Amino acid sequence: MTTQALPREPQQDRSRATRARLLEAAVGCLASVGWAGTTVAVVAERAGVSRGAAQHHFRTREELVTAAVEYGSDVRTARMREHLDGLAGRRPSTLEVLTSLAEMYTSPLFRAALQLWVAAASDEQLRARVVPLEAKVGREAHRLTVEALGADESVPGVRESVQATLDLVRGLGLADLLTDDSARRSRLLRQWAATLEPVLHRSPPPSG
Amino acid sequence: MTTQALPREPQQDRSRATRARLLEAAVGCLASVGWAGTTVAVVAERAGVSRGAAQHHFRTREELVTAAVEYGSDVRTARMREHLDGLAGRRPSTLEVLTSLAEMYTSPLFRAALQLWVAAASDEQLRARVVPLEAKVGREAHRLTVEALGADESVPGVRESVQATLDLVRGLGLADLLTDDSARRSRLLRQWAATLEPVLHRSPPPSG
Repeated sequence: MTTQALPREPQQDRSRATRARLLEAAVGCLASVGWAGTTVAVVAERAGVSRGAAQHHFRTREELVTAAVEYGSDVRTARMREHLDGLAGRRPSTLEVLTSLAEMYTSPLFRAALQLWVAAASDEQLRARVVPLEAKVGREAHRLTVEALGADESVPGVRESVQATLDLVRGLGLADLLTDDSARRSRLLRQWAATLEPVLHRSPPPSG
Repeated sequence: MTTQALPREPQQDRSRATRARLLEAAVGCLASVGWAGTTVAVVAERAGVSRGAAQHHFRTREELVTAAVEYGSDVRTARMREHLDGLAGRRPSTLEVLTSLAEMYTSPLFRAALQLWVAAASDEQLRARVVPLEAKVGREAHRLTVEALGADESVPGVRESVQATLDLVRGLGLADLLTDDSARRSRLLRQWAATLEPVLHRSPPPSG
């Protein structure tokens, strides 16, 4: 079996790389020019891929764009997990976790996802595709946040506080859409970390 | 002066009523069909106003739509203020305030505003118009929330907690865009009220 599969691998690698380039270009395109300007042709050009090759991977922009948001979300989640693992066993502070989450929800990926969600709000066919994606992305963000905070969801109120934290950072993503909201966001996250710690039975990091 | 002004009043009233009909139709149109489908002609038809009359009030859809979101926000704010005044001096509970806010941010007005903000993210000219509007709407929502909660912003952390509450309800508005999120939202707001009360030095309502 391997002898048959081997010669095909370089081509499969190339195909996978082309696909990834298209997905990354689609996230950037959505985030900067919005849903209306994001077509397979425009994304192919941004990615430096021929229109034919792009259409071989994605027949419609609905297909391309939902795949792009899913891919971007997987990459972001993996990167945040790596960052947490890179702390080498040191427990991240509540504020570190909140800051990582806020970075995720003010990134081009969030702007791209927002364009897709808002387009789906007035397009039934797109909505049918986006609702399961939104649920999947939301579940993964929740799981990652629970792990990062070391939250015990069997304690009453903890699950709702983790959910509220995620809704809060989504609201912060929205507040950063048209203007730079970073200074206000930093103050707000410090306060939220202090408020959240007793609910999660976490202690603040040792000062000094 | 009054004798000259009098004969014009019925016409001014009609003109004001036409304008209000157009603004209300524009909010409904944006919320249901989105930015791309919201033109002056479509809104005029929804409002039962001739295209010429509509164009007399609003030359472009940018003008119409920003005026509509501002008008809708003024109406909503006034309605929430009336509701609070209607409590006849009784202090609303934290949860009552949060529930009113969440209603505002899951209403067609929020969906309309979201369509406008997201369209402005990839349209420089529209952004220049929307940024001051977003700031104004945000300031009014903040002022109303401070009043409703009786929050003392000179206490450290209170201002940030009020801001976080507004970012949270905006996040909840987003979470309700594609699916009915009301059951989860109710649980989450109860927990948020309990978390917020000690920060605001408010006591929970007497039980029983």
